[in-house]
Amino acid sequence: MLSILKIGGNVLNKAEILSQVLDDFAALPGKKALVHGGGRAASSLAKRLGIEAVMHQGRRITDAAMLEIVTYAYCGLNQQLVAALQARGCQAMGLSGADWDAIRAHKREGWDVDYGFAGDIDAVNGERIFALLEQGLIPVFSPITHDGRGQLLNTNADTIGSAVAAELAKFADVSLFYLFELPGLMRDPADASTLISSLNPDSFLQYQQQGIIKDGMIPKLKNAFDALEAGVKQVVLCAPEMLGKVYADDFVGTRVTPGRVDAD
Amino acid sequence: MLSILKIGGNVLNKAEILSQVLDDFAALPGKKALVHGGGRAASSLAKRLGIEAVMHQGRRITDAAMLEIVTYAYCGLNQQLVAALQARGCQAMGLSGADWDAIRAHKREGWDVDYGFAGDIDAVNGERIFALLEQGLIPVFSPITHDGRGQLLNTNADTIGSAVAAELAKFADVSLFYLFELPGLMRDPADASTLISSLNPDSFLQYQQQGIIKDGMIPKLKNAFDALEAGVKQVVLCAPEMLGKVYADDFVGTRVTPGRVDAD
Repeated sequence: MLSILKIGGNVLNKAEILSQVLDDFAALPGKKALVHGGGRAASSLAKRLGIEAVMHQGRRITDAAMLEIVTYAYCGLNQQLVAALQARGCQAMGLSGADWDAIRAHKREGWDVDYGFAGDIDAVNGERIFALLEQGLIPVFSPITHDGRGQLLNTNADTIGSAVAAELAKFADVSLFYLFELPGLMRDPADASTLISSLNPDSFLQYQQQGIIKDGMIPKLKNAFDALEAGVKQVVLCAPEMLGKVYADDFVGTRVTPGRVDAD
Repeated sequence: MLSILKIGGNVLNKAEILSQVLDDFAALPGKKALVHGGGRAASSLAKRLGIEAVMHQGRRITDAAMLEIVTYAYCGLNQQLVAALQARGCQAMGLSGADWDAIRAHKREGWDVDYGFAGDIDAVNGERIFALLEQGLIPVFSPITHDGRGQLLNTNADTIGSAVAAELAKFADVSLFYLFELPGLMRDPADASTLISSLNPDSFLQYQQQGIIKDGMIPKLKNAFDALEAGVKQVVLCAPEMLGKVYADDFVGTRVTPGRVDAD
């Protein structure tokens, strides 16, 4: 059993929530890995340096100056998380895609805008990552990859989560967890009773047509289905508070599965 | 055979020299590890953020704001070096002391000034680092350690070099190389013919009394003798251009040895 947890700004930006999430992550049974985004770190560093963050459809445009900033912020944050996990008895080891050539990517090209040093993943070295897990190590991935020719690249952390999960599904039963600002996918974000507790490709299309699933959720869920297609057992979206219950009966959240499920 | 190379500002701040040094490092035979300082990265980032670097006797005073900056800059630089080594066919893996609890330190205390989050090393986990070397990995150490309770600490890279070398001497024949702005230790820095080609504890004391060895060289050489005391085979000070020749007959530099040597 292998749990892969992805955390982003909604966890990283709140010290108390982050601390609880790291406690719960440390307590998860079996093998595990953490993938983190940048949270506020890069934008805040950029702002202090007077460099404006430029986004296009929710994705950051990474010019050379911004690449330096995100490399600094994400790799520094990575080590802060490693130290925090070490303090919880976890044998954490920080990895970018460059470390041991763990994740190879290429500079994004052929899109409608030039994303600069944004990296799209070519290959995850599952054998090496699994060898670390077998040694009892807990890989902590920053959202930085490389192209094998010396260039670091800024890579979406959700995508790293699903790509690593997909590759490791060859070696273990993988569950992928995305911590969320909401209890899960909701029909109405303001109404907790509208939680969509399970989702499959058919119901995804249906919700997308109804406008219930939209914007940043679409690529996130496409990533999830890619991972399931590759053999990942489940992709779960839940609130940070639920991490301690992900394998318990009273868990509340959205479970994404490859098979057909009853709409609920 | 294991070569440990420490590089600092005189290499890191000059793109062409750095590129050549990484080429030569990649070509070194046998097992190897790299230890880097921060070069200009941290001070330059601090300056851009309007934070003044405060030094005391050549050592940085690291308050909380400066710790964040050095963590960002050193860990980012670390991954830039890892990517540059990967491009040269080296299976580099970046490590801070927090990664896999590789280097445990404590906050410096009881000195004449408060150095803030400066870390003095308690333990290097030689078994783990050597296990990585045995897997064909090339560890790349940033000058960041941790205290095991979640606190990152800023640690002198020269000291990391000698501490890692000393610990790994239990597992391999270790040579430790410090790249230098000069051809080696000189009686007169302006006169290349005054190179001191070998040094031992007796001649060190003699040169120190004569004022030839002074300032920052004293802790650097004390580190070197500590490493030799622990079983390291040789500590070498040489110019970056000499790295390609460190195991060749026409090598020029200062070789520091534990035994008695003829003064020259």
